[in-house]
Amino acid sequence: MSAPIKLILDLDTGIDDALALAYALGSPEVELAAVVCSYGNVTVDTATRNTLALLRLLGHPEVPVYRGADRALDAKAAFEPPAGVVRIHGENGLGGQELSGWCYAAPRNGVDYLAGALDAASEDLRYVPTGPLTNLALALRATSADASALPRATFMGGALTVPGNVTPCAEANIRNDPEAADAVLRSGLPTRMIGLDVTHQVVLTRAETACWRALGTPAGRFFADMTDHYIGIYETNNPHMGGCALHDPLAVAAAIDPSLVGCHAANLRVDLDGATRGRTVCDPDRLRDAQKNCEVALTVDAPRFLEGFLARVERALA
Amino acid sequence: MSAPIKLILDLDTGIDDALALAYALGSPEVELAAVVCSYGNVTVDTATRNTLALLRLLGHPEVPVYRGADRALDAKAAFEPPAGVVRIHGENGLGGQELSGWCYAAPRNGVDYLAGALDAASEDLRYVPTGPLTNLALALRATSADASALPRATFMGGALTVPGNVTPCAEANIRNDPEAADAVLRSGLPTRMIGLDVTHQVVLTRAETACWRALGTPAGRFFADMTDHYIGIYETNNPHMGGCALHDPLAVAAAIDPSLVGCHAANLRVDLDGATRGRTVCDPDRLRDAQKNCEVALTVDAPRFLEGFLARVERALA
Repeated sequence: MSAPIKLILDLDTGIDDALALAYALGSPEVELAAVVCSYGNVTVDTATRNTLALLRLLGHPEVPVYRGADRALDAKAAFEPPAGVVRIHGENGLGGQELSGWCYAAPRNGVDYLAGALDAASEDLRYVPTGPLTNLALALRATSADASALPRATFMGGALTVPGNVTPCAEANIRNDPEAADAVLRSGLPTRMIGLDVTHQVVLTRAETACWRALGTPAGRFFADMTDHYIGIYETNNPHMGGCALHDPLAVAAAIDPSLVGCHAANLRVDLDGATRGRTVCDPDRLRDAQKNCEVALTVDAPRFLEGFLARVERALA
Repeated sequence: MSAPIKLILDLDTGIDDALALAYALGSPEVELAAVVCSYGNVTVDTATRNTLALLRLLGHPEVPVYRGADRALDAKAAFEPPAGVVRIHGENGLGGQELSGWCYAAPRNGVDYLAGALDAASEDLRYVPTGPLTNLALALRATSADASALPRATFMGGALTVPGNVTPCAEANIRNDPEAADAVLRSGLPTRMIGLDVTHQVVLTRAETACWRALGTPAGRFFADMTDHYIGIYETNNPHMGGCALHDPLAVAAAIDPSLVGCHAANLRVDLDGATRGRTVCDPDRLRDAQKNCEVALTVDAPRFLEGFLARVERALA
């Protein structure tokens, strides 16, 4: 048996982050080394609380949880989710379902942890941020390592060939801290972008959540109710999709098994000004460089991903 | 020897259109069936005159020339190029060099011709529009054929993964008639998009134009002077490129030999409203359709294209 894949998640723990966490915990080839928390779907404090509670619900209270940045690099105040985001993920970020019976440990510094983990990383480390790239940008500032020699980060965010989901050009995670994402994408760090180009191709329906509920476990019921809330939002906002997009789980899946996606190698930048602020786009100044830092996923084997998603999440919820 | 490839060009004959015309005439496997003219770099009348003059200069006055639409589908007045475009292509569209000794034949209707040619087309027909897609949109309206059964159109235009060249999101040809491009891309017609994603990767320098001048022919001198004007504009506007982009010739090359480019299969739409008007982007409503109408070129074998470009254009200018 080969050595487990060491995984660090960086979650702004809302609903699809919770699904990503379950995917990771249900993946037999993965050792979840830590979860760093971020802001975006919720505040960083809510993300940290939700992560601790979900880890307990899923039977893994031993996984270390770190509190990351509470705001974008250039923000003057801590991030608070806007009303539209609260509607999508619910007041508590988990569709309004309450969790109890866990304790909120003294938060540890997520950026320091991440910088140290990346510095010490072996090839088997997979780092997957599913929120804004603030923690990663701060960790890159904190480490003296050559970014191009660090392990590849597989991030959920961006939209290269499809419209954004918060503006016509911008996806929410990138839009929440364009300066951080731009710094990461220009740093030389190897990255893999799991953006709306592919996450809008992987869709979960109420048929699957009904199976989770039928498991009869507290985790199965919780995840079914939470995800049905999320599917309900999609039924209103994106009725043509026929379910909810599995944004964050796809990033975890592609980090574990990159063959699930087909990628275009590119050097990206993030637009910082004007109407396109937050857009991920190829940098014209590096268009002809032979070296490309980012593998941008444009195609996905959706049936194979969904089959694996259901098997892994069901294992975590059982 | 195999049958020649029958090619119909649709040019808004400015400088890189002239280079595309020379590329086609210098391609031994091609029979240039006709040139339909359009507006964009110049007015449609100037494009028609320039095409007739260039065909005579290049020794092919027998090629039929048709006058296409003079304005966008929704435009109230005939198109006149804005000052910035006049600066790029020169007052006459050919860098200011004058051509004489040709006659302006009575213009024939380009849309009628195109509709008939597409209707009667065999698999060996390659249609390459390098300006706005107005003539094609009108021809599709005029034909009763199923668009999905017509031969593939390889068009120069659009920008899927890179910024636009007239706005942050829009490329000039598409922006000149977004409604026409949107109609074409939604029609079911098989298309291949040669956009800024790839045309900004193929660059010509003054070293090559000096070789054309050294040929000692009228055509060699004319094309060298014309192209040096174009390179001069790039030296001011895009100094990082080190030369001029070969937009329109790459579209002709990819129509003749699709293996020059690497493509992403997609269903595109064109944004018609707001700040992103004229953007080519994947249509979210057709993102998961198995059938994809457009092959979007994202990579190009630039050295192989340039080698072929120089050989073919030199043959046409000799």
